[in-house]
Amino acid sequence: MSESSPTPDVSGPVFVAHEGGKLESVPTKPLRDRDDLSLLYTPGVADVCRAIAADPELSFRYTTRHNTVAVVTDGTAVLGLGDIGPEAALPVMEGKAVLFKHFGGVDSVPVCLETGPVEELVDAIARIAPTYGGINLEDISAPRCFDIEDALKERLDIPVFHDDQHGTAIVTLAALLNAATVVGRELPSLRVVIAGAGAAGVAIANIFERAGIPNVVVADSRGVISRSREDLGPHKRKLAESTNPRQVTGSLADALDGADVFVGVSGGSVPEDAIARMADGAIIFALANPDPEVHPEVAARHAAVVATGRSDFPNQINNVLAFPGLFRGALDSGAKAITEQMKLAAAEAIAALIETPTADEIVPSVFDERVAPAVAEAVRAHA
Amino acid sequence: MSESSPTPDVSGPVFVAHEGGKLESVPTKPLRDRDDLSLLYTPGVADVCRAIAADPELSFRYTTRHNTVAVVTDGTAVLGLGDIGPEAALPVMEGKAVLFKHFGGVDSVPVCLETGPVEELVDAIARIAPTYGGINLEDISAPRCFDIEDALKERLDIPVFHDDQHGTAIVTLAALLNAATVVGRELPSLRVVIAGAGAAGVAIANIFERAGIPNVVVADSRGVISRSREDLGPHKRKLAESTNPRQVTGSLADALDGADVFVGVSGGSVPEDAIARMADGAIIFALANPDPEVHPEVAARHAAVVATGRSDFPNQINNVLAFPGLFRGALDSGAKAITEQMKLAAAEAIAALIETPTADEIVPSVFDERVAPAVAEAVRAHA
Repeated sequence: MSESSPTPDVSGPVFVAHEGGKLESVPTKPLRDRDDLSLLYTPGVADVCRAIAADPELSFRYTTRHNTVAVVTDGTAVLGLGDIGPEAALPVMEGKAVLFKHFGGVDSVPVCLETGPVEELVDAIARIAPTYGGINLEDISAPRCFDIEDALKERLDIPVFHDDQHGTAIVTLAALLNAATVVGRELPSLRVVIAGAGAAGVAIANIFERAGIPNVVVADSRGVISRSREDLGPHKRKLAESTNPRQVTGSLADALDGADVFVGVSGGSVPEDAIARMADGAIIFALANPDPEVHPEVAARHAAVVATGRSDFPNQINNVLAFPGLFRGALDSGAKAITEQMKLAAAEAIAALIETPTADEIVPSVFDERVAPAVAEAVRAHA
Repeated sequence: MSESSPTPDVSGPVFVAHEGGKLESVPTKPLRDRDDLSLLYTPGVADVCRAIAADPELSFRYTTRHNTVAVVTDGTAVLGLGDIGPEAALPVMEGKAVLFKHFGGVDSVPVCLETGPVEELVDAIARIAPTYGGINLEDISAPRCFDIEDALKERLDIPVFHDDQHGTAIVTLAALLNAATVVGRELPSLRVVIAGAGAAGVAIANIFERAGIPNVVVADSRGVISRSREDLGPHKRKLAESTNPRQVTGSLADALDGADVFVGVSGGSVPEDAIARMADGAIIFALANPDPEVHPEVAARHAAVVATGRSDFPNQINNVLAFPGLFRGALDSGAKAITEQMKLAAAEAIAALIETPTADEIVPSVFDERVAPAVAEAVRAHA
C-alpha cells in the first residue's frame, strides 16, 4: 500500500498533536529501592498472585482491572472512513482513551485487531478479557458488530458495550426527551423516522421503543424497512418485525411525510422538500459527521428543534456524554453487564441536567462536568 | 474455586501496595476545550487515520505504538507458582510494566490471555499485534513457549521476545563473562552444566554456545540430556543434538564432577557433595527463586564466584538488567526483531559496566542507571 500510494501529507497542527501518540502507561506506586521492588515485583507479588488464584474476584481489587476498559476495534468502520485497518484505527482508539480518562477517570487501553471471521474475533477478544474490567467495542462494521457484541455478552462476565450502537442511542434518547418537552409532546405520541440501519440506527430504534415510542420507522439506502422487503439480512429482518407497526413501505421521503421526528445516522443526504413535508413542530437530528444529512440551517426552516453531531452548531449529540460515565458507574458498582435499564437511566440522567430545555439547548455541553457523574450515578443505581 | 478455597489472607504491606493495581493510562496531550477535542478526536483525528491507512509505518510515528510493548502471558508458568491463570498473573505483568517504564521509559500494557492450544494463542496474539511496537512474552509454560515465540516471530514484523528465555540468558551470559575474568579463564575452555531444561535452561545453553562455549551439558529432572535418552520431546531432542558434545550420560551430580560452571534454573536443589566435586575455581549461579538450588553460603565453600537471583546476596542475576534496555533500543531503532547479535551485544554491554569484576561484583545493581542506556545502545548498534 505504501509503495503505490502517494506519500501522505503529514503537515499541520493535527499531526503535531499526534506526534508520539496520545497516551502513556504510568506506574501509580513508587519504585525507589529494593524494598519497593520486593513489594511491587518478586518476591512480594507472589502473595497477590496466590490470593487471586484462590479467588479471581480479587483481581478487581488488586490489579488495574478494577478501573481498566479495553477500547477494541478491528478497524472496519472507523469514523466515516470505512475499513481502514487496525493500525489506522489506533489514533481514534487513543482519542477515545483520552476521553475515558478525562471525563470518567477510567483507564483505558486501545486494542486494535486484525479483522477476520466473527467467531475468530470473538475468540480473540474473549481470550484477552481477563485483563480488563470492561470491553468497549468501537468502529466495527455492521452487521458483524451485532453478532460480535451478542457473543461476547453471552460469554463474558464483564460489561461489553458497543459504543457506536448504545452510546449513540443513549445520547439520542436524552436529546429526544428534552426536544419533546420543547415542542410540548409526549414520547409515545411521536412518529419517528430513522435514516440508517447500521449500528446506530438499529440501537436508536431499539432504545426508542423501550422508551415507549411505538411508531418508529427505519429506512436504509433502499427505502423503508418492512416485512415486505425481500432483500433483508437477518438483522434488518428482525428490525422489520420490531419496528414499523403499520408496515408502511416506500422511500425515506415517503416515510417523512407527516413524521414528527427525523434521526439521520446514515451518512447520506436528505433533500429539503422531504424535510418540508414533516409535521408542524418537527424535531430533526441530523447526526452524520462531518456532513449532516440536512444542513442545520436548512433543517431549521422546517423544524422546531434541530440537533447535529457537530460542535459548531447548538445541540451536539455526542457519545462522550454517555460512555465515560457509563463505564465509571459500571466499574464502581462491579456490574457484570450494561443493562437496558442502565441505558434508559443514563439517557434520563443526561436529559435531566438541562433544567429548562429550549430549542437551542436540549443536551448538556460535552464539557459539562456534571454529566459523567450523573450518568455514573444512574448506572450504579441500576447495578 | 472461590467457593471451595478458604478466603485468602490479604493483610500486610504487599496487599496495601497492590490496592487498585500499579498502572494507569494517562493522556499525554492536553484536552482543555473544543479546539483540543477537534485535534485529538473528531474531526481532526481522521487526517491521521487516513495518513496511516496510506502508509501503515506512520503508526509508529503518530500513535503510542512507537513506545508501547505488550507484556503477554497466559498465566501457565507464573514465577514459581505454576499454572495459576490469567487473572492471577496480572499483578506480575503490571509489575513488569512498572519496571519497563521506570528503567527503560517504555510504555507497556499487560495482556493476560485465557490459555489454550498453541495455534489459538498465536492467532490471538498476532491479531492484536497491530496495537503494539513489540511483544514481550512472559511466564508461558515450556515447551509451548518455544513454539509460541517461534510462530509469532515468523508471523510478525515487530520484535517478539520471550523474557524468561532470552532475558535470563542475556543476564546469565553477562555474569559469566565477568565471572570468567575473576577466575582467569577464557569462555571456550569452560565446562558448563545447566540444571533445568525449561525456558531459561534452553535459552542459556543456546546463548552460551553462540558465545563460544562448546562444552555445555544440560540436565533435567531425569538426568543429563543426551541422544541416548528415549524420553525426550522434540525440544529436548534438539537440545541433545546441540549440547553435550561428548554425549555424557548420568545424573546431574555425575555431570558436575569436574565441571567449571553450574547454572541452576531448575527450581530443584543440589546437594553439597555434588557441588564439592566441581573443579577448582568453580562458578556457581544458583538462580532458582526464592530458594536457590544450593544456598549461596554453602556454594561459597566450593566455588570462587557465586551468584543468585536474590537481592539479599551479592551478584543478583535479574532480567531487569536486560529487558528495559533491549526494548528501548529496539523501539528507538525501529528494529523488526531482536536478533542473536543484539542479545550477545546486550550481554557484553551489561558485563562491560563492571570495570574490574570481583567475586562479589560480576553484574551491576538492578538500580544502576547506566544499564538500560548501555543495553539500548548495544541493541541500536546492531539494528
